[in-house]
Amino acid sequence: MSKLNTFQSSLLDEAVRQAMKSWDEGGIPIGAAIGSERTGIVGAGHNQRVQTGDSTAHAEIDAFRKAGRRNDWFSMTLASTLSPCVMCTGATLLHRVPIVIIGEHNTFMGAEDLMRERGVELIVADDPRCIELMERFIDQRPELWNEDIGEPGAKGET
Amino acid sequence: MSKLNTFQSSLLDEAVRQAMKSWDEGGIPIGAAIGSERTGIVGAGHNQRVQTGDSTAHAEIDAFRKAGRRNDWFSMTLASTLSPCVMCTGATLLHRVPIVIIGEHNTFMGAEDLMRERGVELIVADDPRCIELMERFIDQRPELWNEDIGEPGAKGET
Repeated sequence: MSKLNTFQSSLLDEAVRQAMKSWDEGGIPIGAAIGSERTGIVGAGHNQRVQTGDSTAHAEIDAFRKAGRRNDWFSMTLASTLSPCVMCTGATLLHRVPIVIIGEHNTFMGAEDLMRERGVELIVADDPRCIELMERFIDQRPELWNEDIGEPGAKGET
Repeated sequence: MSKLNTFQSSLLDEAVRQAMKSWDEGGIPIGAAIGSERTGIVGAGHNQRVQTGDSTAHAEIDAFRKAGRRNDWFSMTLASTLSPCVMCTGATLLHRVPIVIIGEHNTFMGAEDLMRERGVELIVADDPRCIELMERFIDQRPELWNEDIGEPGAKGET
């Protein structure tokens, strides 16, 4: 039985669609979506490092951007195909989003401890689609992946 | 005697210019700049919440964006007119920027403990220009300020 309810599943499905879209564009295959049962999905996005050259444009940040200015973040759920890094964790805490659905954390463990410490509820879906996308990406584009998670010596394009 | 060397002062001066520019545009008066003595300033920006409706566009994030894709973040210094919030702290940690100059932390205390805990060197400049800008802003636009730091019930524009 799935750990996710119907709305949460639809949020993760949208995140996966975003990740696939990014991969098809030659980008990093990580996607995210944010919303609530009341509002539906209000923002969805994907990593934009390759597409726009913006090192802050992780999927979760892109999804927040797409959602625009709101005053109901506290009622939202964020879904990401991958365990959120420390920057996206910070964005989650700043916006006071209380629930985060994580597609997978096998290929990369983000700042889950920090989110949990600050009271964010995490649901790890262990979704095979998310694992497969990341494994293929890390295998085929290791330099790009290291650049995205800030590994020293990773080759940027400057 | 100033706590800042010549390059660090020029970085904070640029952050202050950015903050003033944002205030003149009707926006939130927080600015940031990033660079090193070797490269000079590679990115400078300001809070863009009012100007673009992007809730992730804090000054520090805007400065990272302007700097583009790089592989030398570890040699950079980030200056912000205000103590960085938890999202901008996360961005600093992700990019592995080792030194952060903070214009002031009297009007708002960001996630300085988290940065220090993770080995970031912080230099608090106690700059009167930064304090004056923020005091005026918080006095004149309290709702906008609460929205920017994620206070529940702050009035967004949705």
